[in-house]
Amino acid sequence: MRVGKHHFRTIWLDELDPRIVQIIDQRNLPHEFNIEDLRTVDDMVTAIKDMHVRGAGLIGAAAGYGMYLAALHSGSFKSPYNHLLDAADLLTASRPTAVNLSWAINRQLKTLTHHHSYEQIVQSTKTMAQTIADEDARACFQIGQHGLPLIRDLSLLKTGAVVNILTHCNAGWLAFVDHGSATAPIYAAHDAHIKIHVWVDETRPRNQGARLTAWELEQHGVPYTVITDNAGGHLMQNGLVDLVIVGTDRTTYTGDVANKTGTYLKALAAHDNQVPFYVALPGSSFDWETADGVNDIPIEQRAGEEVKFIQGLSHQGLTSVLLTPSESPAINYAFDVTPARLVTGLITERGLCHADEESILALFPEGRA
Amino acid sequence: MRVGKHHFRTIWLDELDPRIVQIIDQRNLPHEFNIEDLRTVDDMVTAIKDMHVRGAGLIGAAAGYGMYLAALHSGSFKSPYNHLLDAADLLTASRPTAVNLSWAINRQLKTLTHHHSYEQIVQSTKTMAQTIADEDARACFQIGQHGLPLIRDLSLLKTGAVVNILTHCNAGWLAFVDHGSATAPIYAAHDAHIKIHVWVDETRPRNQGARLTAWELEQHGVPYTVITDNAGGHLMQNGLVDLVIVGTDRTTYTGDVANKTGTYLKALAAHDNQVPFYVALPGSSFDWETADGVNDIPIEQRAGEEVKFIQGLSHQGLTSVLLTPSESPAINYAFDVTPARLVTGLITERGLCHADEESILALFPEGRA
Repeated sequence: MRVGKHHFRTIWLDELDPRIVQIIDQRNLPHEFNIEDLRTVDDMVTAIKDMHVRGAGLIGAAAGYGMYLAALHSGSFKSPYNHLLDAADLLTASRPTAVNLSWAINRQLKTLTHHHSYEQIVQSTKTMAQTIADEDARACFQIGQHGLPLIRDLSLLKTGAVVNILTHCNAGWLAFVDHGSATAPIYAAHDAHIKIHVWVDETRPRNQGARLTAWELEQHGVPYTVITDNAGGHLMQNGLVDLVIVGTDRTTYTGDVANKTGTYLKALAAHDNQVPFYVALPGSSFDWETADGVNDIPIEQRAGEEVKFIQGLSHQGLTSVLLTPSESPAINYAFDVTPARLVTGLITERGLCHADEESILALFPEGRA
Repeated sequence: MRVGKHHFRTIWLDELDPRIVQIIDQRNLPHEFNIEDLRTVDDMVTAIKDMHVRGAGLIGAAAGYGMYLAALHSGSFKSPYNHLLDAADLLTASRPTAVNLSWAINRQLKTLTHHHSYEQIVQSTKTMAQTIADEDARACFQIGQHGLPLIRDLSLLKTGAVVNILTHCNAGWLAFVDHGSATAPIYAAHDAHIKIHVWVDETRPRNQGARLTAWELEQHGVPYTVITDNAGGHLMQNGLVDLVIVGTDRTTYTGDVANKTGTYLKALAAHDNQVPFYVALPGSSFDWETADGVNDIPIEQRAGEEVKFIQGLSHQGLTSVLLTPSESPAINYAFDVTPARLVTGLITERGLCHADEESILALFPEGRA
C-alpha cells in the first residue's frame, strides 16, 4: 500500500542487489519509518524475534525469505542442505507460537533434498520465498474484493453518506505482505471511491491500532479517527458505526474467533446495537482441530510490564513511561475469544461465509481431512 | 483511608492553623504524593479548575471550603456578604458542569444574609464546610455498609475463597472526601477481613484506574491487579470476576447510568456472563428529570489530545508522550450510558435497590417532587 507517494510491501528483495532482503522496521512506527537491510538468516531471526516484523502473514513471508538468506550463505558448507536444516531450526525458534513460521519453513524444505546443488538451493528458496509472499498478498487482495460489496451495500443504503467502519488492533497490511486482512475491504472501498471513515481502536496494551493502523490509513489517505478502546460502545449506541471488521489470530472451524484482547467487548456492543460484525481472515488462520474456542484456545499471557509501561514520542525522542504505581501488579492476557454467535460473518479469500461449521467447511472442504 | 500508616481525607482544615485548607494534590499521583496548602478562594478555584482535586463529592466539599476561605478574607471589604457572592461566582465557574459545585455553594449562601457580621460569616461557612465534608464521608461510609453484604454473600458462596471484584475508573475515596462510592464496599469488606481482590481497569484516556484507584488500593493494602480496559471480557468469560462495582456521574430515576467511557462495555460482558453488575452512588447523583439516559444525557466531548498523549514517569521525571502519528485525528467522548436493563442493582447510602423507577423512588421519595 502507499507510504507517502510510493507503493510498499512489508518485505521484498532489494532491486539492485537481490542478495539483500529489505523490510519495513515496524518497531518505531509511527514516529520513525525505517527500511532495514537483512543479509543473513541471523539478521532475519533477530528481525522476527525482536518484532521488526510481526503479524501472522508477514512472519510466514519473513521465514520464507530467511531460508533464502540461509541458502545464499550455504555455499561454504560441506552440505548446503544441512546448513538449511540448521537455519530452519533457528527460524522456527524465533517466535515459537506463530504457526505461519513452521508452515513457511516446511514449504521451503519440502522442495529440496541433500542431492541439490548450491545453485539449485539458492534458486529454489528464492522462488519459493517470493511465491509465499505473493500468495499472501494475493489472498489479502481477494479478501478485499470479497469484502468490498459489504461496504458498497452500506454506502448505497446510506445513499452515499460516509460509511463508518470500526476496527481493532492491526490486521492491516503491516501484518501481512500487502493489503492486510481486516483492512483489505477498507482499502478496496477507498480505492473504489466509496466514502468511508475508519474508527481506529488504539488497542492497549501495545497500541497496534494507534501506532500501526493509524499510520497505515494516514499514509494511504483513508479518513480515520483514533479512539480509546473504551469508546466503541458509545459510538455504536449512537449510530456512529455501520460495520465492524477485525482480523483474527485463530478461528475454530465452528466460527469462534481468537483475536487481540478487547475484540469480544466490541462484538458484544455490535450485537447489542445490531451493527454487523465481520472477521476477515485467510484460510490459513482456521484451526481445524478445535471446536470450542472459548474453552480450548490457549490464551497467551504476556508480561505485565506491557500494561504498566507505554512507549511514545517525547521531547527526548522515543520514551517509555510508567503509568501505574511502581509496585502495582498487572496482568496481560493478549487475546480473547469472541463466540461464533456474536459474529455476523467471515470474509475469506474464497468469499464470505457464516461463522458456523457447515458454512466454513463448504468454503474450505479440505478442513474435513 | 490509609496512605502509608496514616489516615487521610482528601480535604481538611490544617490542625495547627485552621485558616488553611489542606488537600491531596492529585495531579501527579501515583508518582508524587503532595499535600497542598490553600489560603484563599483563588487558591481553591485554581485547585478545582486545574484538577488538583476532582470527583463529584470532593468538588462539592472543595467548593464548601472555598466559601470559608473567601469568608476569612472578607473582613476588609465593606460588605463581607457581597465578597462571598463574588467568590460564589468564581467558584461556580471553575468547573461549569459539576452539579455538586453550585449545590455546595448554595448551601453556604442560604444560611447567610447581608446582616451577618464578619465573625458570623466566618463561623457559619466554616461549620457548613465541615458539615458538607462530613456528610459526604458519611454517605460513602453508608454505601460501604450497604454493599458489604453483597461481598460477604459471595465470599460465603465461594466458601471463603477470594472474591474478585472488577471496577472501572476512580469512584474511590480520592473522588469524595473519604471511602469513595464504588470502593466503599471494597474497603468495608477488606476491613471486615473478607478475602477480596480487585481488577482495576486502567481507564483510558486519563487512566484514573491505573493512576488513582491502583494507588488507593495499594496504600490501603487491598490486593489488586491493574488490567487494560480490553481485558475484562476475557476475565468474566473465564470465571475470574465475581462482581462488578462502578460509580456514576449521573443516574436517571429510571436507572440508566452515565459513567466513565467504557463502563457500558463492561456491563455488556457482565450480562453475557451472568456476573452481577452494581452501581454505587450517593443520592445526590440521581437525575430526577431525565427518563431516557441513552438518548437524553449529554455526553461531554473532551480534547482529542487526551487520547493522543499520555503522561507517565520516565527517567526524566513526569513526561508526556505522543502515542499516534502526530497528524492523527482523535475523538474523546468522556462518558457513556449503560442502560438500566444491564444493571443488577444500585448501592446507595439508604440501601440497595433495583435500577428501575419504582425501586429508586421507593428509596428516594423526594425524587417525585
